[in-house]
Amino acid sequence: MGGLKIKAVILAAGKGERFGDSLPKPLAKLFEKPLIEYIIESLEKVGISEIIVVYHDERVRDFVRSRCKTVYNPHVERGEGYSLLLGAKASGGGPFLLLMSDHFFDREILSRLLNSNTKSTTLCIDKDIYDKDLDEATKVLVEGSKIISIGKNIKKFNAIDTGIFLCTNEVTEIAGEFEGKFTVTDVMSKLSQKGKLLACDVTGFFWRDIDTKEELIKVENFILKSLVKPSDGIISRHINRKLSIPLSRLLVKTRITPNQMTFVSFFFGILSAVLFGLNKNIYAGIFAQITSILDGCDGEIARIKGTESKFGAYFDSITDRYADIAIILGMIATAPDKLWLIGSLALLGTYSISYSVSRMETLANKRFIGGIAGFMTRDVRLFIIMIGGLFNQIFLTLLILAIFTNFVVLSRILSARKVMEHVSLTKQGM
Amino acid sequence: MGGLKIKAVILAAGKGERFGDSLPKPLAKLFEKPLIEYIIESLEKVGISEIIVVYHDERVRDFVRSRCKTVYNPHVERGEGYSLLLGAKASGGGPFLLLMSDHFFDREILSRLLNSNTKSTTLCIDKDIYDKDLDEATKVLVEGSKIISIGKNIKKFNAIDTGIFLCTNEVTEIAGEFEGKFTVTDVMSKLSQKGKLLACDVTGFFWRDIDTKEELIKVENFILKSLVKPSDGIISRHINRKLSIPLSRLLVKTRITPNQMTFVSFFFGILSAVLFGLNKNIYAGIFAQITSILDGCDGEIARIKGTESKFGAYFDSITDRYADIAIILGMIATAPDKLWLIGSLALLGTYSISYSVSRMETLANKRFIGGIAGFMTRDVRLFIIMIGGLFNQIFLTLLILAIFTNFVVLSRILSARKVMEHVSLTKQGM
Repeated sequence: MGGLKIKAVILAAGKGERFGDSLPKPLAKLFEKPLIEYIIESLEKVGISEIIVVYHDERVRDFVRSRCKTVYNPHVERGEGYSLLLGAKASGGGPFLLLMSDHFFDREILSRLLNSNTKSTTLCIDKDIYDKDLDEATKVLVEGSKIISIGKNIKKFNAIDTGIFLCTNEVTEIAGEFEGKFTVTDVMSKLSQKGKLLACDVTGFFWRDIDTKEELIKVENFILKSLVKPSDGIISRHINRKLSIPLSRLLVKTRITPNQMTFVSFFFGILSAVLFGLNKNIYAGIFAQITSILDGCDGEIARIKGTESKFGAYFDSITDRYADIAIILGMIATAPDKLWLIGSLALLGTYSISYSVSRMETLANKRFIGGIAGFMTRDVRLFIIMIGGLFNQIFLTLLILAIFTNFVVLSRILSARKVMEHVSLTKQGM
Repeated sequence: MGGLKIKAVILAAGKGERFGDSLPKPLAKLFEKPLIEYIIESLEKVGISEIIVVYHDERVRDFVRSRCKTVYNPHVERGEGYSLLLGAKASGGGPFLLLMSDHFFDREILSRLLNSNTKSTTLCIDKDIYDKDLDEATKVLVEGSKIISIGKNIKKFNAIDTGIFLCTNEVTEIAGEFEGKFTVTDVMSKLSQKGKLLACDVTGFFWRDIDTKEELIKVENFILKSLVKPSDGIISRHINRKLSIPLSRLLVKTRITPNQMTFVSFFFGILSAVLFGLNKNIYAGIFAQITSILDGCDGEIARIKGTESKFGAYFDSITDRYADIAIILGMIATAPDKLWLIGSLALLGTYSISYSVSRMETLANKRFIGGIAGFMTRDVRLFIIMIGGLFNQIFLTLLILAIFTNFVVLSRILSARKVMEHVSLTKQGM
């Protein structure tokens, strides 16, 4: 399959004095991982196989050299523009992606830029200017798809420079014309004057230029907040996440992987099932709630570390279903002759909740969150099971599950027609 | 939401002498439905709300006038070019879709044409020239996205005119310049000489120009053949479809809808479940196989009638799961104390087969067919259940289902990583 042919240049020769830290800025840690590693991983994830890092500090070189080509900048006093020139030359001229080592950004920005299929030099811009630090930001004035002007001190502007570029040979040429100290913005400004700098609008995607320790912590907090998903059920939002997020923050310091965490959560689910089977209902209920809390950690660790994968999401959803069903089977096992039918209906409804969402997502080709997921989300179901275990009410628990889960599925079928028709029209571009 | 603003013009004033039938050609029946109705429904499905039909025979007008605007062509002797002129004027000049009333085509062709966002006159062309009737076809010579020449008798050509156009005002103007008899091709030829006719490549999608009764039957047979899906399991392909397709051909003559048919199939599944519960295992097995056969009819009827819907597919998949589980529950019910655990595992595996495909499709954003579906497809599972019923081997049947379904799910998880990684790369355009 191979990777994309386009290369990437990361400018990592800056000194980062404002960090007040002995480490060079690209190695400043977001959670437990150096900033530059997030950038390298994002590039690898979108399929870029050749990454060039322009460095000055040897520690940066030592950190990246197993995965990247490194270029030494002996003249940091000539500014980041000179680093750009060195990187551009090392890349063979262009086209190449240009990234700053002190920027954190949502990987989707790269995908969007690469999918824009532009053949001109293009800058990702953000039109949400009001939540950014305007003193520090590089501003741009965009008209249509063209950037009219760019600079830190331009007066008329309607967007912010995200520091993520796709560069052509022209960038290399212009950068070569400068003498003394110059910035990336100086180069881009010249291109924009010639009408040759385009904009790729990435408004709405998260990115931040991290200049200070405080900004680093702000980004960490943003990432932690984003771990609470819009699809989270009421128990997850108000109880589970409050426990799983601090736990995940600890776990990212260890070597545990998200998929291992999925397995741990699954193990506690099976433990709950076995305890129900042994009629240790109080312990079983508690472990059901523990598996529910731990179920959040795999995704959280993955997102904090930037190692989310489709396989991880897949593995998590299949093991969740097996754990769900195992727990119900454990409950039935205490009195199969009496409980098997109501238990089977609970089991059927429980599985159908998940299946009916998945099928709808497949057919409608989009994700459904919130209302459509119904109120019987996994966190709620496991919470009901915990309560049922604590009060030793197995039959009642199965009855509640059987009624409400199947009710949600039924109401979903009844609403499906409207949801799907809407989707099929919007898909045709109306 | 409203529909697309673009209008459509259907040329339906031709005489269709070669049909040797008293009915005008647009009313010739493909299965039980007039050809022109397929076209109108396709237009409605892609969101076109204003359709103009140019007719000569009053029976055509009477058939379409509840859904379309009609325009009478009093001068059929002036050829279809004149019909085009009348339709174009009635549409207000353009842009409008132009379609022939005697063409059958895959609805995706319209979606592709509309999504091409072209602003010039555009013709859908087919580069598969070898399976077409080249004596009758209008040929085109395409270079890049432009059509260089078009005509029935041009010598150099590399594609075929599908008769599906998106027309601008220019078509209306040029059509107005002709006198006497002229064809649509004459108009388009003039446009192509000016370099103003673009091509939209729809090679690979099914379409046919239906001039004779024989061609009508060929199209019917093509549709029937296409009912055997690549995702069909071995029992479905070799047994069920051989029974369900002839049955569906009969059923399209009735007023039964695909969703009603889904319900009928579901009903037979529940009947099988009840019979298993009553220990009438032979009958139960037979009804399990009947529900399996009838399960094909809903989709077949929908595709023959051209009324497929996402809701229909959704309703079918949820009811299939409930019927599957009901049948297994019916089997457990004969001896719950002995069978509940193995039965529950069969139930879990059965549901997981469907869920694990659906989740993979959602996450990977594509459809999986064939290998990935495993060998325990629904038709195979119900066939095993029939055999089990006939030989009164309930425990063995549940055991086989429990082992093989869960085995397929496990092997799917193991292969998921590779499948997903491939997808995530190809999605990024490599």
